[in-house]
Amino acid sequence: MSQPTKFVLDESKMPRHWYNIAADLPKPPPPVLHPGTQQPVGPDDLAPLFPIALIAQEVSTEREIEIPEPVREVFRLWRPSPLYRAHRLEKALGTPAKIYYKYEGVSPAGSHKPNTAVPQAWYNAQAGIKKLTTETGAGQWGSSLAFAGSLFGIDVTVFQVRVSYDQKPYRRALMETYGARCIASPSNETNAGRAILAQRPDHPGSLGIAISEAVEVAATHDDVKYSLGSVLNHVLMHQTIIGQEAMLQLEMAGDDPDVIVGCTGGGSNFAGIAFPFIGAQLRGGKKRRIVAVEPAACPSLTRGKYAYDFGDTAHMTPLVKMHTLGSTFTPPGFHAGGLRYHGMAPLVSHLLELDLIEAKAYQQKTVFDAGVQFARAEGIVPAPEANHAVKGAIDEALRCKAEGKSRTILFNLCGHGHFDMSAYQAYFADKLVDQDYDEAELAMALAGLPSVPA
Amino acid sequence: MSQPTKFVLDESKMPRHWYNIAADLPKPPPPVLHPGTQQPVGPDDLAPLFPIALIAQEVSTEREIEIPEPVREVFRLWRPSPLYRAHRLEKALGTPAKIYYKYEGVSPAGSHKPNTAVPQAWYNAQAGIKKLTTETGAGQWGSSLAFAGSLFGIDVTVFQVRVSYDQKPYRRALMETYGARCIASPSNETNAGRAILAQRPDHPGSLGIAISEAVEVAATHDDVKYSLGSVLNHVLMHQTIIGQEAMLQLEMAGDDPDVIVGCTGGGSNFAGIAFPFIGAQLRGGKKRRIVAVEPAACPSLTRGKYAYDFGDTAHMTPLVKMHTLGSTFTPPGFHAGGLRYHGMAPLVSHLLELDLIEAKAYQQKTVFDAGVQFARAEGIVPAPEANHAVKGAIDEALRCKAEGKSRTILFNLCGHGHFDMSAYQAYFADKLVDQDYDEAELAMALAGLPSVPA
Repeated sequence: MSQPTKFVLDESKMPRHWYNIAADLPKPPPPVLHPGTQQPVGPDDLAPLFPIALIAQEVSTEREIEIPEPVREVFRLWRPSPLYRAHRLEKALGTPAKIYYKYEGVSPAGSHKPNTAVPQAWYNAQAGIKKLTTETGAGQWGSSLAFAGSLFGIDVTVFQVRVSYDQKPYRRALMETYGARCIASPSNETNAGRAILAQRPDHPGSLGIAISEAVEVAATHDDVKYSLGSVLNHVLMHQTIIGQEAMLQLEMAGDDPDVIVGCTGGGSNFAGIAFPFIGAQLRGGKKRRIVAVEPAACPSLTRGKYAYDFGDTAHMTPLVKMHTLGSTFTPPGFHAGGLRYHGMAPLVSHLLELDLIEAKAYQQKTVFDAGVQFARAEGIVPAPEANHAVKGAIDEALRCKAEGKSRTILFNLCGHGHFDMSAYQAYFADKLVDQDYDEAELAMALAGLPSVPA
Repeated sequence: MSQPTKFVLDESKMPRHWYNIAADLPKPPPPVLHPGTQQPVGPDDLAPLFPIALIAQEVSTEREIEIPEPVREVFRLWRPSPLYRAHRLEKALGTPAKIYYKYEGVSPAGSHKPNTAVPQAWYNAQAGIKKLTTETGAGQWGSSLAFAGSLFGIDVTVFQVRVSYDQKPYRRALMETYGARCIASPSNETNAGRAILAQRPDHPGSLGIAISEAVEVAATHDDVKYSLGSVLNHVLMHQTIIGQEAMLQLEMAGDDPDVIVGCTGGGSNFAGIAFPFIGAQLRGGKKRRIVAVEPAACPSLTRGKYAYDFGDTAHMTPLVKMHTLGSTFTPPGFHAGGLRYHGMAPLVSHLLELDLIEAKAYQQKTVFDAGVQFARAEGIVPAPEANHAVKGAIDEALRCKAEGKSRTILFNLCGHGHFDMSAYQAYFADKLVDQDYDEAELAMALAGLPSVPA
């Protein structure tokens, strides 16, 4: 065989710092506001929820922040993760494009999420915290924090969006295997949950509601902190280890991407692969196309409004400026549960406003077509979320074919689909159908956005 | 951190040959017999089922057989697989032992099985074969052959033991994702299946029955060959890439195992990790303890008889001398479906007779205790089959603790449990109970062993 398939970095080359894109932005993103005063929040406002070290990272503008050695030590269980050249997929597509993918499914929880779960648990443990709450959609984040908690002696309670809790019982079993407690959301354990259930007892849940529940528990208990798996600046920063490794691996391959593709729900895996490349561009490097792919049933980047909004449904979080479908919007119950969030990370939203990235939306059947084609060519069965990135990359490769032009495409295969096989079952039984959000509900949710003076 | 966690071999160090233990045995294993003539079978007897290249490997006594480059090319998707030092597990156990594990769950199908599925599919494709049948228990073998078939344009039909088919629907979805057809066994598609169903319509199935069905289809169709995932000499040989890699990785670690542990169903993952080390010993190298761990509910090595028996229930296969519970024995439906086989690989049986290995049996609750302890310490959730090896290794480590003695333990973590989370669900719901086989059924099955003159 002439060309290598897999590019493996030696452990000694694992990045020692996270990359903080705030250092390189042409202008800073709008400030996060206190919902009462509508003034920028300070560290004290966030202290009930997060340990001080993570608050400091959230507002830092330093380009590099050191990854603590005990965190890198855990990362060595699966990092550096492999970069693959998709020779078989290229052949199946008949494209002149070169397709590379970074594979984050090698982590114990099966996705990129442990990249931030482990440092978050570690910083909390350092601050003496013994209990964490969080929310989860498909369960990738919840099982990642459960895993991280088990390593550092932290009790983890996870509010899981009910539709995913019902669709994906094995994720719950995984969380329990790691010693966490998993509760279907909306639940009767919080005011936020009870209020929703009073209106609609069979509510399928949403990430916005689950966040409300987890935040409420942390805010009302002194010994409990809260942990978020996406959206926030420090969470996105923790994922930049992905893109940094990919840069080194593409150097090994003697290649340089023209197009970078990632799927977006809250924005963290996309940020992880893209930010180091965008940063290099902002410091005078090569200009690349950076494509965010989202579900057409929850299209915050392509159909949302760029406005201040709450991160949760019960309005317990600060106000952040982001592309949002409105905090009361409940997306339909499609299979990529990790992408069912009404908003988008403020940093990703800001980059879209600055025209530094593009966004595309796809319906779920076409992304599963892409995922199955990928699995048959490359062997790895992607998570439904990751299928969005696969579809985006395949479309870029087919465009190369149509234009008779070779480009180098890099995408982030952010997780495997082993816990999502019910979605593949539905696909093969012809029961997986495209889902549209309710236009009237979207209009109402957008009309209900909080009014914030410019 | 002072000591490394993960030992990764460069692709260039991936073994180029399989190791054939037949070259180093002090005496050869008893011959395989034709069930009609009771004379040793020749290549012609096997030709309806296997391509000639695999038959040649089955009877070869050459020490090294080259791995074809197109096979190594596929292996590069996940090989060399990592070797881990289980620092966190050692700490949790408080043992002076050093525990290493080779992790085969990194393959696309999640276990060691693709190590033989890929070459078997490739040799069949080289021989012009377009259709393969096989059987599967838990589904690890079936999904591996489905994956391999998808790479080489071979249609794969899998007869899956009904109890696993029902318990583990996601394995079927995985097989379908790779393009294979999966049928619950016993089925109405074969004479063997229909005969069983006529006696007992709700029969839970067994590997012995599923083998009969798959062999029948191949034997009665000129254009279909059969593929087996364990037991046979060439299958065990294909797995020796595991132990060969582990040797190189332990050299990197500057260590040398005193005890090697693997779980045994048909014997292939155990052979994969152990045979290269046993071979080195037979050529004058270090003597090590080699421990095979099997389920107490299907204890072929510890309770079976070393005798000539059929590999399947309908008596379509040749007679092989092995530790067997009798070909009509149906093990209870415990969760490690991959270990529910009445017999043991002839080579593994022969080694037990030669006192070159030991065997132990455990009930399923205690192996799940071990698996959960492992997952909380090391992050990886093992397959129920692999939990047997985990339990065996933990017991060896605890013995070191009791004796105040450090030894180096190596075990094969042959697959992850992502498709077996229903077993973990049952475990956490306190519904996973120890299962005993029926002593009367075992006695009857042993009484029914074919009579073969010594």
